[in-house]
Amino acid sequence: MRCDVVAVGTELLLGQITDTNSQWLGEQLAAVGINSLLQVKVGDNHARVVALLARVLADADAVIVCGGLGPTHDDLTREAIAAVMGVELQHNEQVADVIREMFASRGRRMPENNLRQAQVPTGATIISQTRGTAPGLICPVRIDGVEKVIYAVPGVPHEMKDMVERAVLPDLLARSGEAGVIISRTLRTWGESESGLNERLDPVIDRLEAVGNPTLAFLASGWEGLKVRLTAKAATEAAARELLGTWEGEARALIDETVFGVDDETMESVVLQLLRDRGLSLGLAESVTGGLVAGRITNVPGASDVFRGSIVSYASSVKFDLLGVPAGPVVSETAAAAMARGVQRLLHCDVALALTGVAGPAEQDGMPVGTLCVAVAIGPEVHTRTLRMPGQREQMRQMSVISALDLLRRTLLAS
Amino acid sequence: MRCDVVAVGTELLLGQITDTNSQWLGEQLAAVGINSLLQVKVGDNHARVVALLARVLADADAVIVCGGLGPTHDDLTREAIAAVMGVELQHNEQVADVIREMFASRGRRMPENNLRQAQVPTGATIISQTRGTAPGLICPVRIDGVEKVIYAVPGVPHEMKDMVERAVLPDLLARSGEAGVIISRTLRTWGESESGLNERLDPVIDRLEAVGNPTLAFLASGWEGLKVRLTAKAATEAAARELLGTWEGEARALIDETVFGVDDETMESVVLQLLRDRGLSLGLAESVTGGLVAGRITNVPGASDVFRGSIVSYASSVKFDLLGVPAGPVVSETAAAAMARGVQRLLHCDVALALTGVAGPAEQDGMPVGTLCVAVAIGPEVHTRTLRMPGQREQMRQMSVISALDLLRRTLLAS
Repeated sequence: MRCDVVAVGTELLLGQITDTNSQWLGEQLAAVGINSLLQVKVGDNHARVVALLARVLADADAVIVCGGLGPTHDDLTREAIAAVMGVELQHNEQVADVIREMFASRGRRMPENNLRQAQVPTGATIISQTRGTAPGLICPVRIDGVEKVIYAVPGVPHEMKDMVERAVLPDLLARSGEAGVIISRTLRTWGESESGLNERLDPVIDRLEAVGNPTLAFLASGWEGLKVRLTAKAATEAAARELLGTWEGEARALIDETVFGVDDETMESVVLQLLRDRGLSLGLAESVTGGLVAGRITNVPGASDVFRGSIVSYASSVKFDLLGVPAGPVVSETAAAAMARGVQRLLHCDVALALTGVAGPAEQDGMPVGTLCVAVAIGPEVHTRTLRMPGQREQMRQMSVISALDLLRRTLLAS
Repeated sequence: MRCDVVAVGTELLLGQITDTNSQWLGEQLAAVGINSLLQVKVGDNHARVVALLARVLADADAVIVCGGLGPTHDDLTREAIAAVMGVELQHNEQVADVIREMFASRGRRMPENNLRQAQVPTGATIISQTRGTAPGLICPVRIDGVEKVIYAVPGVPHEMKDMVERAVLPDLLARSGEAGVIISRTLRTWGESESGLNERLDPVIDRLEAVGNPTLAFLASGWEGLKVRLTAKAATEAAARELLGTWEGEARALIDETVFGVDDETMESVVLQLLRDRGLSLGLAESVTGGLVAGRITNVPGASDVFRGSIVSYASSVKFDLLGVPAGPVVSETAAAAMARGVQRLLHCDVALALTGVAGPAEQDGMPVGTLCVAVAIGPEVHTRTLRMPGQREQMRQMSVISALDLLRRTLLAS
């Protein structure tokens, strides 16, 4: 089964926005074993979209078209698909009703041109719109005597993703004679390289390759950590979940201590929850990361019930005068420990995390670029560690953030 | 003149990396008035790349191929182009020498397969490699009796950009009968919406559209501000610079007070330089932005000669106890002013910037989500302002960062 991707929008060709949809689609299609061999960006031009769809469908079994489903005159995906199918567009009153209701519920008048979105090629099936106002379309089309299919989904990423997960992927799998439910589970890890994880998971990967379902993929996500994603296909949701559960267990047996969360959990949300569960408040002392740890923690809604604040002590004199760091090198475990103690005292918090290090460009106090000293103070106890971070300034700082949060997480779990 | 784009790499189709190259290329091509009507991702497959290039060149005058120039067996762009041209690959000893020298200068042994990168289609011109080890290629090709051209550049963004600016764009312009030098200038602005800037620049835009050179484009870049980019073409660099200078002056005459920097200058680098020039040190008190301002400031190398630190006072009690904010609502200009004063006292800094506001999800102290109170203290003076930020939590926080830094910038300039 081959499903190519077409992204429609002149603004994509002009570089005004990045096409991230086709990347996401490529990832999803690969996870369920469907080949995507060509992914194309094309402008809002009727003739070119029609020619492109016909050409792509000469080779592919299916094509997903993103974008061009809006209400304005340059949204021409519906017309182009009807032309490729050789059919007319028909007004669909049910779709029109949903659009009218959506405007009414927001207390807004519906502009007449929104009814363009209720136009449907004859023979197409609707993918109902749960957000936005444009429905998606499943459009069967006969090319050189072979049944193929065009899927039309909106260009707005969250609307597109919803429809693809809910309708497009199940339909594609049904057409390829495969089961109807696909579910993914992502194990989020930190503390092991991609090749290291790969090596440790080798026995499971070998067995998965033999059975072919679920699939396993690694996704590197910078300071979000390394993701190990399992994707299962099955006839029912229950069966898919059971399959996922079994293999998640097998994978965890090999790498469990690197797994800090699953799916949408982030390192910062996991750390905040651990603290919340224990009734502990958190304070930070940051030097090398200069506020990035606090910035990340406070991006989690509800952080305020745990997080008290951070002292960003970038200048050494702030470390000495305000935090009470003893005279001596400021990139050291001694300094980190004193920073953590100082924060507990100044912010009246139960737990303090302190980071001091060298982001470069030059070494500092004889410590090379990439050095990170971390201290975790929990009540009267202080744990310290020195780590080596990779990369240049920005990468070094970002890796320091997740590494320090992971150390805090492990310390909380062990305490 | 039409120049399409082909990005080669199976990892792009699998969604393992995002294709940002074609977006950048689309932006550059549009800036110099060259149409790019199709941008395609294709995998590392010889037959498919050959077929795709032939098909694209049936319609386009030129195509830029990114990627597949590496030394390994799945780097097949050279072979595919030779097939489309109907010629053989030839070993180029000069290219081989450059590659050998590059390895030798780093004290590393050159693996034999790197000599694959010295293979050049007969009739192609080399774009010399100044970074990386792969040279680029300019490959003339006759399609249906018409002279067209294939450009091959590496997939690594900074290598690709260097070669496109240095060789591909000038060659494209020469072929289209245009001048040989293209230079851009970006005015970085804050404080006016895109439509507002557009309106104010209308007289200049009208005149530019009449003359056609330079071109003017708006690029929205979130918390990096709104960019106004002028791109000039001319026979010589001096002439292009003169043209840019003239029109930059015309544009600035209409929007000068919104321009905080040019080209690669950022709001934070500009603010740091203003402080440095005046011999002033900076401290921060952050609540709603929770460390993001400090994180951004400290991403600038050399920030430490100006920046002393930040007190992230997320919990109200930290504002009261540590910063000395008086009892009362903490989202207020009074609280912001006290936070700034507290930071001047605690961090011994000349200038303090304080931010307090409501990022949501719920309102606070009767203030709606999006409220931002900012205080700038310079020596004994304190200036305060209340602003309304757009968007949800993350956007609100990011817009608060650049808005507050801009207020600091304007206050420094006025003081």
